[in-house]
Amino acid sequence: MSIVIIFNKRNSIPWEKELAKLLPNEIIEVYPNIKNKEDIEFAICWKPEKNILKEFPNLKVVQSVGAAVDHITETQEIDDNIIISKIVDTYLTNDMFEYTLTAVMAYIKDVNYYSINKCKKDWKPKYYKRINETKICILGLGEIGSYVGKRLAEIGFNINGWSKSKKDIKGINSFYGKDNLYNAIENCDILVNILPVTEETKDILDYNLLSKLNKGGFLINIGRGEHLVEKDLLKLIDEEHLYGASLDVFRNEPLDADDKLWDYPTVTITPHIAGITNVESASKTISENYIRMQKDEDILHRVSLAKGY
Amino acid sequence: MSIVIIFNKRNSIPWEKELAKLLPNEIIEVYPNIKNKEDIEFAICWKPEKNILKEFPNLKVVQSVGAAVDHITETQEIDDNIIISKIVDTYLTNDMFEYTLTAVMAYIKDVNYYSINKCKKDWKPKYYKRINETKICILGLGEIGSYVGKRLAEIGFNINGWSKSKKDIKGINSFYGKDNLYNAIENCDILVNILPVTEETKDILDYNLLSKLNKGGFLINIGRGEHLVEKDLLKLIDEEHLYGASLDVFRNEPLDADDKLWDYPTVTITPHIAGITNVESASKTISENYIRMQKDEDILHRVSLAKGY
Repeated sequence: MSIVIIFNKRNSIPWEKELAKLLPNEIIEVYPNIKNKEDIEFAICWKPEKNILKEFPNLKVVQSVGAAVDHITETQEIDDNIIISKIVDTYLTNDMFEYTLTAVMAYIKDVNYYSINKCKKDWKPKYYKRINETKICILGLGEIGSYVGKRLAEIGFNINGWSKSKKDIKGINSFYGKDNLYNAIENCDILVNILPVTEETKDILDYNLLSKLNKGGFLINIGRGEHLVEKDLLKLIDEEHLYGASLDVFRNEPLDADDKLWDYPTVTITPHIAGITNVESASKTISENYIRMQKDEDILHRVSLAKGY
Repeated sequence: MSIVIIFNKRNSIPWEKELAKLLPNEIIEVYPNIKNKEDIEFAICWKPEKNILKEFPNLKVVQSVGAAVDHITETQEIDDNIIISKIVDTYLTNDMFEYTLTAVMAYIKDVNYYSINKCKKDWKPKYYKRINETKICILGLGEIGSYVGKRLAEIGFNINGWSKSKKDIKGINSFYGKDNLYNAIENCDILVNILPVTEETKDILDYNLLSKLNKGGFLINIGRGEHLVEKDLLKLIDEEHLYGASLDVFRNEPLDADDKLWDYPTVTITPHIAGITNVESASKTISENYIRMQKDEDILHRVSLAKGY
């Protein structure tokens, strides 16, 4: 029995070191240097190349090192008997909140406006929004969305939340089901997307949905690039219905150099850093899952293949 | 008896309207259009020109429309029997907190770094600080400083506060007295200045004081321009001891076009907007003070001329 790390454009060394400490008696190999593919039962993955997992006939558990698994489910054909697990990490959840708070404050206090004015040496005050005058809709109330919404509500923002089923979270007005999606967004100034990618949520951030935001509104996307119809966002900015956006995720990462997003002054681009998995704490979950697999116990943070999250 | 509004480079019309509603039977005049200067007992001031108040022999109360009175005490010779009052406004106090939160989040999450990278179409992640890893020192624990510190502590920041006398505020480590000024700042990442301007605090933000911040540290000045020795700040940025600053107040406002500050990419400049007095709520305080003056009752938010705040 052994473990394989399959990373694509990501440094595996810190993970190897941390896991070696936690599982000193196990063999941990890094793809593509594998002695015997039949021995592999546990694969730790980040954006694996197409159908790589098929090479391991005795695979039992596929462990994502992120909070999402679409980078695995979209690229691999996975047998039903293989368990997929994600990372639920309080660091990562909290980081997503801190990223959102930063983007929200920068928007309501016109950080971008003053930064542009500074280049022109222009001293020009502008009326700004206050926290308690700002209404935010959170799309997706899983671990991360619930936490982000709850913390923003504590600070004084008005929070709507939308999810598949009804949620009872302090400070969040719960909207649920497809029929209430637009109701959740109407009268909001900011939309924060933290949905998982599924067939139903792909391209969800389109012209119709984004136009439901208040005039001058703002999008924060920390879900996935596949959620956003980029040309629709840019159209709404061109039409001055939306002010701009803070985007951390893109269909292609790194973002293509010729992408129009780079040229929009009110669109903030960050290189997928809103929530970076903490190697130390995530490795604890991973080693725990490996031990549970050996003992035939329930795997932590198992993902439903049918739901996709 | 009548009231005079003496504003310098500030629109008085909204104030006239609001005060006329609250004091419908009183004469409210706007400098320099005064019928009879002997009638004036109550002056509402913003940055009055030098010694203008001397023109009113029967003045009893001088009301600042801001949270500070240095724009009055520095420019006027005021008899001891005249009462000076400032505005204590929950809007203004809260706005100062929201400005500080914005500047703090932008600093710890490298908003400026990503904004510069965006111009270069550069996709380059950077390690960022988290809220609970960030230590902030608040200079000045009056109404505003106490509130800012308390709210930031609630969000999870580590807060030191420095004031003349000991304070007991939830979430703030109290440092007090001249001897402990540097102790309060040592090991902090961010310094937030909300001191009043007095003889003792002028030029307080100098090389020695600012160099006590951690390497890579950051200054937020929402006190007064007179607190900051600008060349010392720029020297510490040039020496890479400090990362940058968010400045809302300056010795000359608007900031001179040839000021070096404009050219520093990691210095954010805002045009004195951190706390804008709310005309509606401030006018309530002002009319209440006018009525109290007539009834010989204690004036609200009276300022000690000896202390200067």
